[in-house]
Amino acid sequence: MQATSLKDLNAMSRADFVAVCGPFFECSPWIADRTWTMKPFAAREALHTAMRETVAGATLDEKLDLITAHPDLVGEAARRGSLTPESTAEQTAAGLGGLSPGDIARFSQYNSEYRAKFGFPFVICARENRKDAILKAFPLRLGNTREQEIATALTEIDKIARLRLFDALSEP
Amino acid sequence: MQATSLKDLNAMSRADFVAVCGPFFECSPWIADRTWTMKPFAAREALHTAMRETVAGATLDEKLDLITAHPDLVGEAARRGSLTPESTAEQTAAGLGGLSPGDIARFSQYNSEYRAKFGFPFVICARENRKDAILKAFPLRLGNTREQEIATALTEIDKIARLRLFDALSEP
Repeated sequence: MQATSLKDLNAMSRADFVAVCGPFFECSPWIADRTWTMKPFAAREALHTAMRETVAGATLDEKLDLITAHPDLVGEAARRGSLTPESTAEQTAAGLGGLSPGDIARFSQYNSEYRAKFGFPFVICARENRKDAILKAFPLRLGNTREQEIATALTEIDKIARLRLFDALSEP
Repeated sequence: MQATSLKDLNAMSRADFVAVCGPFFECSPWIADRTWTMKPFAAREALHTAMRETVAGATLDEKLDLITAHPDLVGEAARRGSLTPESTAEQTAAGLGGLSPGDIARFSQYNSEYRAKFGFPFVICARENRKDAILKAFPLRLGNTREQEIATALTEIDKIARLRLFDALSEP
């Protein structure tokens, strides 16, 4: 994927801007759409801050939709090859591509427990973690309250978006 | 992508069901999520009918979100390689992979005009059309009212979903 310059981005129509920045947040192009009105952006950092503010200003239902838009790690979508290109690269980078049957079963069990307790999928910035760290995080986060986990998921989503944004855009 | 049997699908948890059936409708997993409560499904046809009913029962805002979730044909997301795996395959099947600069400019112009008039992207079932048919459809559909185009877009989305569903699932 070639990087878009911030200069070009600032000159884009709303639709093109959403096509470039929409995928920073999984299946949630409304975040890029609302952030477009805040352009121009002087630096990638400023765009990331603006997108974070858009999320912070969303309703609780919208935040839950954003969390729910994420696929399970090592889940059914990964097995079927129907992840977004961004999620595929991230799960592979975390070493989740060629797991043993035992590891796959552990992910499956944790994913189910987590969804049963909180009602949304377990979200973690895979590129900042490796398999063992992710498997250690599951039992710790299962001990949290739902409110804590909503906050944690949104923090992880912000890290994912930041890495996608810095990959996709260049600045002088 | 391997096909899932309808028998296995009917036995799936809500999350796994959404992972399999979510991508039938572009970036709109809520349709699969709501349809899960209507299982079991005796045939793929029955599942398709149930998903169509879920869309029909959604609010106008939800329908507009569904339409808006679609990428432009030959648009910025296609150029950047950030389409969903399903959209990539469909745009390639329609012969939209290796267009001349002149054709790309025509698509870009039509996409802009269409969005400016209706406020949402031009949606057509690419697998049932080839480049020339799509380029002919643009000026015709630009002559419609917004209400007509909302109805047309939802009909095209239903065709796209049907093809994705029949690809992804098998029945005896």
